[in-house]
Order: sequence, then C-alpha cells, then structure tokens
Amino acid sequence: MDGEFELIAHLTRGFSARSDVPLGVGDDCAILDLNSDKLLLATCDSQVEGIHFTRQFSSPDQIGRKALAVNLSDIAAMGGEPCYALVSLVLPSDLSRSYLDTIYTGLCHEAARYSTAVVGGNIASSGKSAALVIDITLLGTIERGHALTRSGAHSGDTLMVTGNLGAAAAGLHTLLHPDSRYPRDVQEVLRAAYRTPQPRMRVGRILSQLGPTIVTAMLDVSDGLSGDLSHLCARSNVGVRVELAHLPLSSSIRSVAARISYDPFSWALHGGEDYELLFTVSPGHEQKVIEAVHSATGISVTPIGTMLPSEVGMKLLYPDGHEDALEVRSWNHLKS
Amino acid sequence: MDGEFELIAHLTRGFSARSDVPLGVGDDCAILDLNSDKLLLATCDSQVEGIHFTRQFSSPDQIGRKALAVNLSDIAAMGGEPCYALVSLVLPSDLSRSYLDTIYTGLCHEAARYSTAVVGGNIASSGKSAALVIDITLLGTIERGHALTRSGAHSGDTLMVTGNLGAAAAGLHTLLHPDSRYPRDVQEVLRAAYRTPQPRMRVGRILSQLGPTIVTAMLDVSDGLSGDLSHLCARSNVGVRVELAHLPLSSSIRSVAARISYDPFSWALHGGEDYELLFTVSPGHEQKVIEAVHSATGISVTPIGTMLPSEVGMKLLYPDGHEDALEVRSWNHLKS
Repeated sequence: MDGEFELIAHLTRGFSARSDVPLGVGDDCAILDLNSDKLLLATCDSQVEGIHFTRQFSSPDQIGRKALAVNLSDIAAMGGEPCYALVSLVLPSDLSRSYLDTIYTGLCHEAARYSTAVVGGNIASSGKSAALVIDITLLGTIERGHALTRSGAHSGDTLMVTGNLGAAAAGLHTLLHPDSRYPRDVQEVLRAAYRTPQPRMRVGRILSQLGPTIVTAMLDVSDGLSGDLSHLCARSNVGVRVELAHLPLSSSIRSVAARISYDPFSWALHGGEDYELLFTVSPGHEQKVIEAVHSATGISVTPIGTMLPSEVGMKLLYPDGHEDALEVRSWNHLKS
Repeated sequence: MDGEFELIAHLTRGFSARSDVPLGVGDDCAILDLNSDKLLLATCDSQVEGIHFTRQFSSPDQIGRKALAVNLSDIAAMGGEPCYALVSLVLPSDLSRSYLDTIYTGLCHEAARYSTAVVGGNIASSGKSAALVIDITLLGTIERGHALTRSGAHSGDTLMVTGNLGAAAAGLHTLLHPDSRYPRDVQEVLRAAYRTPQPRMRVGRILSQLGPTIVTAMLDVSDGLSGDLSHLCARSNVGVRVELAHLPLSSSIRSVAARISYDPFSWALHGGEDYELLFTVSPGHEQKVIEAVHSATGISVTPIGTMLPSEVGMKLLYPDGHEDALEVRSWNHLKS
C-alpha cells in the first residue's frame, strides 16, 4: 500500500516512549526488551491473494513457503535469529482442505529449515471466492547491541547488497507475459526466485556479529531497491549515490532481458521481492565484510554506491558518467 | 471455522517437542520460554468483516476496540499481562482514510487502557468491496508457574464463570431482528456487550495469582459456553454437569427475552462472544475465589457446575431435576 509506513507510524504515534520498546513501528522488526539476555524481535507481514500472489502462478506449497520466507527476511534484516511463528489464515469458503494442507506443509517445511516453531494459529473462513490471506507474525531474538536497524547509516558509508537484484521481478514478468523466446531453464531460475525467495538468514547473522560499528544500517529489499533505499535514507537522514554499472545482475536476468529487448536494470532498481539484504558499511571495512560473508556462505556481496549528506538526495550514476535523480518506483506488478 | 482447533493442531503437529515452547497450539495463548524471569504469552486472532463484524452494526471505533479486546481476552484467559500488539490490516481499496483512522484510534485507545504498545503494523490493500480484515498478534507475560491453561481441570472441581452470559448474543439478536418491543435502554446495554466486550484482564490476574492448585484450568468464552466448555473438557480429559438454573443472566437479557418470548438460556449456553472467563476451582476454595475477585474488582463469579469423570461426558441439569446431554452448538450468527 502506498505510504504504508508513514500511515502506520501516524496511526501508532504515542507508543514510542516505553523503555521496554527500544524500537517500535518503522523498521523491519520491532525490538522488545523483556529483561532477558537477548532482545526480542517481532514482525508481521501478510500475503494477500491477487496482490502478493495468485493461485495460478504459485503452487500451494510455494505460497506457504513464501508467506513465511518474507517474514524470515525481516528477522534476517535485523541480524536476528527466528524462533516462533503465529499464522493467521482467512480462507475463501470454497478452498479445499487438501489445498490448505499443502499451504501449511510448505510453511512448516520452511519453518523447520530455520528452527522456527509454529506456536499459534487462527483460521477464519470468509466468503466464497474471497481472497486468501496469510498473515504471519514472526518472533526472533538478537543479542543486545547487535540489532541492525535502518537508521544507522552515515554519509561516507558504502552501500552494499547481497546476491543479485531483479530476478523475482523478471520471473514474475515471464509469468505475466509468457513468451517462447525465454530460454526454458533460465525462465525457471527466475520464476523460482519469485515463487520461493530464500531469506538471507545466515548472512544477516554474520553481519550483526560484525557489529554496528562496521555494518551501520540494514534492511531487506522487498519493495524494490529504489523504494527500500528511500526508507533507509529517510530513517538515517542521509543521501546516496548508486552506481548503475555496479548493480549485480545474474546471467539469467540478462539473458531474458536481451531476448525481449527489455532493460534489466529497471527490474533491478524497482522490481521488488528480491529479499536480498541492503546494508551500509563504514569506509575501509568493505573487503572484510565481503570476505566474511563469502567464506561462510558462498554468497556474494557487492558495493553498489556511497551514502552522502541528506541534502544531496538520491542519485543514480550512469556508466557514461552522467548523474540523475534516482527515482523511487515501487509498483505492484500483480495489481497493475 | 468448524474444527479450527483440530485442524490447526493437525497442521502444526511436530512442533510440540521444544523446551522453549512449554505450550504450543491448542490453548488461548502459546507459552514461550525466552530465559527471562517471566514467560512470554502469544496469541493471534482475526476479525473478518461479514463473519465477525459488519460496518452496519458497529462503528469503526468499536471495530478497532473489539479487534484488540478479543485478543486481550486470550491473555486474560491465561492469567497474564498484555504488553505488545502487532496489527495487520487488509483493507478494501475503497475504504476511506478517515474510517481507517478511526479504527486505529479505537484500537489504540483500547491498547492504552491495558498498557499495551502497538509495536508493529502492516497494511495491505485488497480489491474493491473486499472484506476488511483486522488480524492482531498480542504478546504478554506471565510469572513462571502461574499460567492457567485448559488442561488442568480435575473431576470434582467446581466450574465457575465471571459476570453474566448471553448478553453479546442477545445484543446481536436485537441488531439482526430490530423490534420495537425491546426496551431501548436495555437494548443499548446488550448491544454494547456485543460491540465492545470488556476483557476480564484484572480478574484473570487475580486468578493466576491464586495459583493453579486453587484455580485449576481456565479459558475465555468466545465461541459460546457449550463450545468452549467442550474444549476445556477435551484438553483436561474430564466431563461436566452444568446446572441450568445457575447460569448467570443479566436482567437486561431476561427482559429482552421475555418481550419476544425467547429462551434466554439458549443465548447463555450457545451464544458466544461473551469474553467472560470460564474456570475450574479445587473443591473447598470456591468462596475464597468469589471473594478475592469481587473485593478487588466488583465483578461477580458464579459456580455453574461440577467437573466429572470424562466417561460421563457433558451433562445439563434442568431445574426440574432431569438431566440431558449438553449439546455443543457454536454457530456464526452473522453468517447464518
């Protein structure tokens, strides 16, 4: 929803001044202090049929997996460890029992992969042909002093991202616009990125262990690089220059884009649903971070820009050397 | 949804054997052990337009209050203290901003009344004229050894209930079947019980402080006395005899029922949405419990039956001395 963050912050104003709530609404997770050795992380995210998924494009198993994965990604984005999930479903009354069973199987598989227990559930039956809604609250933990938030970036920090960008958006594009020109194997790789994103759980843990003097701010890329980067800049009160030529694109996305003469950078900048981690690193520590992540997980980390004073705003540097404003575009593909 | 509990238990089987999850799916809340001095309680419940509420019968402020209240009631039913709420909304795309604002205002008011911070939010926009869904996860705390669950009742315990029964169902009846015979002031009292239930937070705390040797099991009446009592009997592996003449009915419900020649006990037994606490007490401690609750809160507690061996099943004793099976009926009024 447009302006969702601002709206929620507006609606929940007045809840910020509690010592047991070090961080409330406005980041990937809330941080809660229950006097335990670790802090509690809490996040909720819903997947709505027709908005976030369709039964045509994803199997029930994939729908269940993804519903949990997008929440796991929010815990990863704080550097935490997931623990418990509460799953609330609103079902169209004509949904079959076996379809529901398979959603849950996928969801519980994904939970087990990340040592997460499903501890609560709620099922409401809505009207016939109503939208299927899967709403999940995920709880996790983080060591005191190690949570990575959106608000710690400084001018001069290096902007980095895990993996590659735009694959999920390209995969969805191949579903919305079937075309015999897409190479079949490549198409499947991109569709898998859309259907079953892999939350960057281990990378998040490594980055939070490096600590907030090295990794200064972090979030996950769910709305799209431009949209999520604007949240990071706003919360940290900084600007940014992104170098287009440095954006990590997979060979799959390049190959599909080439076949249909599409600009793959449009997917990478604004596509969304990457569920990669976008974070900032104190100058001089870039190589250490890249190596720490790669040696432990095999996942690449790419520097894609530099944080700047806030008055500069968000800039995009093109390969030919000219610079333009980085436009924020987060659109809903299924809806549009 | 019919069989919701069994279904969720089935779907989440295999998550029960974790030492950090003393109690998983199947009670009013999950109990989680994060190595803090207190245990964490977690519950989620959704309110779906057309199933749990209508915009015709409740104002947006009331819808917001009730959405939180039904979750607060689940924390009360364990004897805990609420702390944090995460609120997920699925909105029809044509819902006005001011309507949403008022839902949130009601919800935040209710939260503030019970020292609960709204720490997370999520808003998804669904199709035009889609059902409005408010899904809330509520977290709370309970002292170790003090949580009251559904599974601790023994044969011989006394069954007790707070306040009175059937008022919300009677209030909804007056909305569904407008009739000039209802006394106006009485009608408003009953409708208020339906629109803005009062979670029995303080009573729950008092009962949990008495400890599980005195108060042996507890849940809240959301589906209706007969349905919720069947959950308690199943989880505790006991039977029960309820004495019809002892069911607490307010003068309001009696007066409305008399005007339309309706049996008020039908509302009290099967009506639902009372959000009173239903609990069992070790024999000999009844008076102590009644006095402890009444002196601290002014709320009445009524003995309504006796727990029996499970092979007896659920019985209803009529005033004329004959006994029959207590039928379990939990129907959805708005839907039917």
